Amino acid sequence: MPTTNDLQVSALGLGEMGRALAEALVKAGHPTTVWNRSPGRADALLAQGAREAATAGDAVRASGLVVVCLLDHPSVHEVLDPLAADLAGRTVVNVTTTSPDQARELAAWAAEAGAAYLDGGIMAVPSMIGTPGASILYSGSSAVFEEHRALLDLWGTSTYHGADAGLASLYDLALLAGMYVMFAGFAHGAAMVAPSGMKAREFAAMAAPWQAAMTAAFDGLGEVIDGGDYTVPGQQSLLFSDLGDMVDASAAQGISTEVVAMVQNLIRRQIDAGHGEEGFARIYESIRNPAARA
Amino acid sequence: MPTTNDLQVSALGLGEMGRALAEALVKAGHPTTVWNRSPGRADALLAQGAREAATAGDAVRASGLVVVCLLDHPSVHEVLDPLAADLAGRTVVNVTTTSPDQARELAAWAAEAGAAYLDGGIMAVPSMIGTPGASILYSGSSAVFEEHRALLDLWGTSTYHGADAGLASLYDLALLAGMYVMFAGFAHGAAMVAPSGMKAREFAAMAAPWQAAMTAAFDGLGEVIDGGDYTVPGQQSLLFSDLGDMVDASAAQGISTEVVAMVQNLIRRQIDAGHGEEGFARIYESIRNPAARA
Repeated sequence: MPTTNDLQVSALGLGEMGRALAEALVKAGHPTTVWNRSPGRADALLAQGAREAATAGDAVRASGLVVVCLLDHPSVHEVLDPLAADLAGRTVVNVTTTSPDQARELAAWAAEAGAAYLDGGIMAVPSMIGTPGASILYSGSSAVFEEHRALLDLWGTSTYHGADAGLASLYDLALLAGMYVMFAGFAHGAAMVAPSGMKAREFAAMAAPWQAAMTAAFDGLGEVIDGGDYTVPGQQSLLFSDLGDMVDASAAQGISTEVVAMVQNLIRRQIDAGHGEEGFARIYESIRNPAARA
Repeated sequence: MPTTNDLQVSALGLGEMGRALAEALVKAGHPTTVWNRSPGRADALLAQGAREAATAGDAVRASGLVVVCLLDHPSVHEVLDPLAADLAGRTVVNVTTTSPDQARELAAWAAEAGAAYLDGGIMAVPSMIGTPGASILYSGSSAVFEEHRALLDLWGTSTYHGADAGLASLYDLALLAGMYVMFAGFAHGAAMVAPSGMKAREFAAMAAPWQAAMTAAFDGLGEVIDGGDYTVPGQQSLLFSDLGDMVDASAAQGISTEVVAMVQNLIRRQIDAGHGEEGFARIYESIRNPAARA
């Protein structure tokens, strides 16, 4: 059952994610004006009660709160630059994927235009929007986050990370890095077992619960990293295994070893630096200190 | 409440994992004889009802079923080679961590000695032994797996993967590869966010549920890999993002880019080979075909 919300909202950008965000607003009863550069993307939203603006300017002027979900950083400037005067006194919530520095640049640009600015990083695919499983990270104006918290929560689980507008993007990229690296690890495992006749989906059925369970180790790794003492009693030392068996077994299967060699290189630099008796979390130091690279 | 099991079992190797395995046997009521190269490891097991053998030979001769959990492949030969004659007619379940080829070599050696051989790969830490969360992969003698299935299930969730004794180790290494690569991705993310003041444990609290949720994507990736058609409609193309933003943002934080550059390299080789319009699962082809490396 939709709740009634009086707040006018405009949504710029109706890609798959933009449409999901706008739909959540419409369903919650917000009078919602939508705009997309190319036509034909709004039909389903119009049927649900949204209004379509003919121009981005019309959309911006229709609401005090403007949600921006465009292709990339240049697209945001292309659409908003001509509308700087219209944005004065309004609020921009920008969830377009950008780098931390691009988010900071947009925050400065918005401040110059007299607009309040909140940057968002969406840790979800469009189909998850509107569920608590969609985690959305925010940084920038805390006043905007506080004022519009209920609206932001329509999209998922909202968390605020600080006044630096670049932080949402930084944390978003750090989490995405973990995801892409994990996917590469999965693809490596699937390639390792393929010559034995195991299908990638069969391997996925083993790997998904295994990897999900192993995420429980992040907290312990983080504790060791934060403590800075990698000589944790009872754990395997780096010298005990530099993943040589894994790299050799990968090579024996005729596949590239580069995915696991990446981890091995992180381990070996720590062994070379005299830390072979310490634990696996020590690879953090290889990453943190590029000067230590061989 | 312990059940009564008549089957005599001997356990060679009382490291942390070996002790956990032996304890599960004792608790289930199996008359259990244990042996370890260095003394003092059996005390808790003896209090629970295990017998300690003075030599590995005494332990082997005490039971028809011999569980081996030693340091590595050379340790297994060092302990078992002098006992080849004693092993004739007995069954060896070897869960020592070895490479696939080392497991195959041990299976051949056992066959020569007249022993039945089952190889196991334990996907768990010792504290998980005895719970369904401990997944243990087996390969080698299907007759041994069938006959002793109830005993093997005392340790966790047992699965049998084929007569090739190397498969358990291969699948074990493939799953461990995914884990280590995922851990490296976590360490990278923690290093990315550290300059902003976020502690690694704080990052772990965000990253663990995120990564666990993202393992749900393995099945879809596997489906695309098995299908061999990477031109899946509606997905992001490799050209849309080669993770340049992520690599640049990592460099901007002053950390090594090698963890994410590993994924970028997999992507770029596919773009260079003319597959830029296809989807991310295509990185599988970079791994499968080392000849395609730049």
